[in-house]
Amino acid sequence: MPNATTPANFASDNHAGVHPAVMAAIAEANIGDAPAYGADRWTRRMNDLFRHEFGAESTAYVMFNGTGANVVGLSLMLRPYEAVLCPATAHINTHECGAAERFLGVKLIPIPTEDGKLTADDILPRLSVLGFTQAAQPHVVSISQVAETGTCYTPAEIAALADAVHSRGLLLHMDGARLANAAAHLGCSLREITTDSGVDVLTFGATKNGALGAEALVVLNPSLDGSALFLRKQGMQLASKMRFVAAQWVALLTEGLWHANAAHANAMARRIVEGVAGLPEVSLHYPVESNAVFPRLPGHAIAELQRRHRFHVWDEANGVVRWVTSFETTKEEVDALIADTREVLSLG
Amino acid sequence: MPNATTPANFASDNHAGVHPAVMAAIAEANIGDAPAYGADRWTRRMNDLFRHEFGAESTAYVMFNGTGANVVGLSLMLRPYEAVLCPATAHINTHECGAAERFLGVKLIPIPTEDGKLTADDILPRLSVLGFTQAAQPHVVSISQVAETGTCYTPAEIAALADAVHSRGLLLHMDGARLANAAAHLGCSLREITTDSGVDVLTFGATKNGALGAEALVVLNPSLDGSALFLRKQGMQLASKMRFVAAQWVALLTEGLWHANAAHANAMARRIVEGVAGLPEVSLHYPVESNAVFPRLPGHAIAELQRRHRFHVWDEANGVVRWVTSFETTKEEVDALIADTREVLSLG
Amino acid sequence: MPNATTPANFASDNHAGVHPAVMAAIAEANIGDAPAYGADRWTRRMNDLFRHEFGAESTAYVMFNGTGANVVGLSLMLRPYEAVLCPATAHINTHECGAAERFLGVKLIPIPTEDGKLTADDILPRLSVLGFTQAAQPHVVSISQVAETGTCYTPAEIAALADAVHSRGLLLHMDGARLANAAAHLGCSLREITTDSGVDVLTFGATKNGALGAEALVVLNPSLDGSALFLRKQGMQLASKMRFVAAQWVALLTEGLWHANAAHANAMARRIVEGVAGLPEVSLHYPVESNAVFPRLPGHAIAELQRRHRFHVWDEANGVVRWVTSFETTKEEVDALIADTREVLSLG
Amino acid sequence: MPNATTPANFASDNHAGVHPAVMAAIAEANIGDAPAYGADRWTRRMNDLFRHEFGAESTAYVMFNGTGANVVGLSLMLRPYEAVLCPATAHINTHECGAAERFLGVKLIPIPTEDGKLTADDILPRLSVLGFTQAAQPHVVSISQVAETGTCYTPAEIAALADAVHSRGLLLHMDGARLANAAAHLGCSLREITTDSGVDVLTFGATKNGALGAEALVVLNPSLDGSALFLRKQGMQLASKMRFVAAQWVALLTEGLWHANAAHANAMARRIVEGVAGLPEVSLHYPVESNAVFPRLPGHAIAELQRRHRFHVWDEANGVVRWVTSFETTKEEVDALIADTREVLSLG
Repeated sequence: MPNATTPANFASDNHAGVHPAVMAAIAEANIGDAPAYGADRWTRRMNDLFRHEFGAESTAYVMFNGTGANVVGLSLMLRPYEAVLCPATAHINTHECGAAERFLGVKLIPIPTEDGKLTADDILPRLSVLGFTQAAQPHVVSISQVAETGTCYTPAEIAALADAVHSRGLLLHMDGARLANAAAHLGCSLREITTDSGVDVLTFGATKNGALGAEALVVLNPSLDGSALFLRKQGMQLASKMRFVAAQWVALLTEGLWHANAAHANAMARRIVEGVAGLPEVSLHYPVESNAVFPRLPGHAIAELQRRHRFHVWDEANGVVRWVTSFETTKEEVDALIADTREVLSLG
Repeated sequence: MPNATTPANFASDNHAGVHPAVMAAIAEANIGDAPAYGADRWTRRMNDLFRHEFGAESTAYVMFNGTGANVVGLSLMLRPYEAVLCPATAHINTHECGAAERFLGVKLIPIPTEDGKLTADDILPRLSVLGFTQAAQPHVVSISQVAETGTCYTPAEIAALADAVHSRGLLLHMDGARLANAAAHLGCSLREITTDSGVDVLTFGATKNGALGAEALVVLNPSLDGSALFLRKQGMQLASKMRFVAAQWVALLTEGLWHANAAHANAMARRIVEGVAGLPEVSLHYPVESNAVFPRLPGHAIAELQRRHRFHVWDEANGVVRWVTSFETTKEEVDALIADTREVLSLG
Repeated sequence: MPNATTPANFASDNHAGVHPAVMAAIAEANIGDAPAYGADRWTRRMNDLFRHEFGAESTAYVMFNGTGANVVGLSLMLRPYEAVLCPATAHINTHECGAAERFLGVKLIPIPTEDGKLTADDILPRLSVLGFTQAAQPHVVSISQVAETGTCYTPAEIAALADAVHSRGLLLHMDGARLANAAAHLGCSLREITTDSGVDVLTFGATKNGALGAEALVVLNPSLDGSALFLRKQGMQLASKMRFVAAQWVALLTEGLWHANAAHANAMARRIVEGVAGLPEVSLHYPVESNAVFPRLPGHAIAELQRRHRFHVWDEANGVVRWVTSFETTKEEVDALIADTREVLSLG
Repeated sequence: MPNATTPANFASDNHAGVHPAVMAAIAEANIGDAPAYGADRWTRRMNDLFRHEFGAESTAYVMFNGTGANVVGLSLMLRPYEAVLCPATAHINTHECGAAERFLGVKLIPIPTEDGKLTADDILPRLSVLGFTQAAQPHVVSISQVAETGTCYTPAEIAALADAVHSRGLLLHMDGARLANAAAHLGCSLREITTDSGVDVLTFGATKNGALGAEALVVLNPSLDGSALFLRKQGMQLASKMRFVAAQWVALLTEGLWHANAAHANAMARRIVEGVAGLPEVSLHYPVESNAVFPRLPGHAIAELQRRHRFHVWDEANGVVRWVTSFETTKEEVDALIADTREVLSLG
């Protein structure tokens, strides 16, 4: 018998709603006229808050979604005969319907990894084509923090990769759709795992962390700035009533709301891990370092659990599923998932 | 001496805020989890309302902004060696930073017009290249309703153009960033000036009409549907928490709020016209058929008025400015503009 | 009765064959193995000859055709949100099937002209959008020398345009599909109307001037070089057995063959002009400054002449046809055309 | 002491010259005027010969190079949100500088293989994303015949792959840069390994097989034809004096010259294999099924041999080199290579 709670949603952190403080900020921004396209006081305030987090030389640009932020961000770094090295599991490679190839005209070179993370050793063998006219020229390495596998790069790992990348004249891009979760997990500031570790261009996502719809392209390497305003417009990412997006960022960057939301989501993931620890039929496919858990489960258990909770199968062949928590996930929902997991396993 | 009211904003209808009913709808949609990417009940409700307006064979797709809706909409209609015929003043030609050329790889062929509107006579001479291998092949005619000049196409004008277009095997696209204002001005339903007049693909904008940020691509010719979901994603226009965009559309399409907002804005523009009628130094550059007024003014008057109110100069050489009203514009703001105009002219 | 000569071909200079010296050079290059992709001695020799003509800082790249040379050349000068200003009659605008838009993703902004030639006055009004984020940013002015209308820019005209262009931070591109004809007409060196007049990037065509198939992209402004090898490859313009293209250029750049061929073609065009001078029914639509004549003729005469000679109607509405001569055109062919023209006019 | 022969060139079959019959055909085509762009009698004759080889429903289009033929060919088969599955070693993936991504805007999905060849088992797991909106949709499988590894697909292998591909609604593209070598090796007609095996669109190369510069796009599936003329022009592949390219094809497709040239090159590769058979330090990295041999050699031998002959190192880590023969390679050159190989190995 399923547990008595409402079936909970572990499918994605973008199934969550909007944090009340973000919703209040949107409502607060609705006070009559304000200039469009970012010449408003909420966008100015947002820029100040971003500079506070990422450094005085950084510049943030509001974007509609993560795909837009990734593609426009990459457009600052690439000429069309250049290529992007990324993990095969990268969102830009698997979940953006070829947006980078289409808008940028560049090649993505996917690299197989164990855990969704790249190291210098993965990159260097791909650079033998540098200077060879007939090959697309690798010029950007793109990593995701949190990786799509739920794992995090430590500041030292990012810095080592950035050094390798920069020493060969390449640039480092970070897809930070869940950057807040990484910072919370690592106990780092946002700056430590971005600007200070050598990231050149960052996508920073708020939508999965309590916003209604707000992403940002953050140019950390000021030599790459200059054309972002044009490329955002051409990239179909310019919000006319921008104040309502900026206000969401202001809310999240005020009094550490971004951190509190992410830390809660991470804690709920850890609670799941603790709850299923010791179950002999359950193993973790990837280390749990953020708000996603990738357990390997028996097939019958997956089927039965999907009747009770929403979540995706990650790797059908290996029986791996993905449970994602959010700022809204409650202890009760987690405990119901754990109880149901124990129960369905006992039915096997 | 300037009038005692707060300086009013006639720069653009996207400087306005969000209609209270739209804001309430957003707040109402924030009730816990809901599936992302459009599999939620607000998006379903929105689709029903769109079909009610545009016909059972139409399908609506939420988009972030007008540029995105235009470009993704055109992508349903064009192969890359084809071309778009549009007025030289078209937003896609002048105000989208080359997004269509970049994302679609197609040529836009701008056609000079008197009033921002195309007729069959403008189109037909451009079709002599059809079949000539070395020329990009015109395949879509794109018109704006309301045109960027504030003028409207009557249903008969659209139908005549659509017939000419279709008879040569081309397709008709409409940029309806201000479609609501056109319908309100013409006293037509939305359907009369779109589906029933032969439009194949429509961009319908809500942002300028009281939404926070909501546009739609509406495929009216069902033979062109089929790949829109992929092209929306690749076009960087897929909202993850789509319910919050759909809810805005639901609010506007319920009890005619779209019409009330547009009719009010139009009425405020007419009030301006009436207020400056008879002033010998003021003439109207284009007929006023929506929520924009394009008066020709003496240079000194423009300079002085811009110290008191926000608005753009449209045509510096000819002393034409653009005053845009919105759902929020008040009679008092209009009257202050009129009074200030009379006053600054008297100083000349 | 038509004249007794073989019907002659005035349709295009690319209907001509290959000059015997060029054919001999191709045969001479066929001596066993040679490195591919330009690492051969014919390509080295070609580069020396190009530097001799265009200056020590120039670099030439073999291309397959004029469209390829134009598009790859423009790719050195443009970021995707930038735009090209060109005459409405430009080959890149009318006869390249949208290749620039597709490969580069940029906007072409066509400018109406009287005679196919641009001046600073045509350009400057288009630059008011510089810095405006929502507009594609004009960054290249492209002119054709000879223009598609058969007219030539003088060195002073090019220099004046280049000054205006450069003073605003833009760059100057020249489509020199018939550059040789211009130099021969003007009595200038190739360098005077290119490098010395401020052209940044040049397409130089040999195919219409006696080659089998040989075009060149010549980068005159060395700051724009650096990625041409990659962009040529990506632009599908890299010849594997390059020696056979280079050998054609070597033949044409040796002992002034390029000039002799062009001068002959031009002389044949002048012979036509002299032959029809004074005929009251014939007027010249454009000045004859190269190897093309654009006479305006009565409709019946066009129809009858097309039964006797191959040529294209240029402007059907105005009764303008285009007669193009080549290095192969003979006096006898010209005289037959003249005689037939006189005869068909007398029938009218 | 090196052998007394001239150092021979095993670097690539495009280092070879032009077959005398091809050169004669080019010279023969140079008889005065002929219509440009393919409306000449050589191109008509070529089309007849292609239809004779590939079937009455096929249509051939002259292209400048293999990259151009591949990219234009793929453009007939793909919408921009679709993807190409290909071996990781495919020329389109590794040696075309990202031309497909840039011109087509599509994603290439490289698949690791043992021998450069794909099977249905490689393809099917990649099709689980079909219908998933966020993923580029695989729509074309591209194979190379001969593969870049020198290996050939049998007709049965192609047919089995084509069946798997077509059964899922995808299309099959073949890069036949060395198709002639495959047909000669397999003892098949061209048609057996293309049209009759289910290939939809073919690139057929002549340049590596004795031409000066001639490739062809052959549309075998007539439902895909229709826009190839426009896409060839837009793809910068339209030759103005096309007769001189067509004449090369006519020469090669007359009296089986294509087969004789390929068979000779293949025989020279087999002669190498026989000559090094039994040398304990030499093993073959891939089966020798065409005109390329990939021996694994000790490092000192590679270094010394490269002082005597031209060839590329294929896989530095594993000591694999590539020796390519051509229609011009002589027994004496092969025997010198064999003798030198034996000699340098004895020095080890």
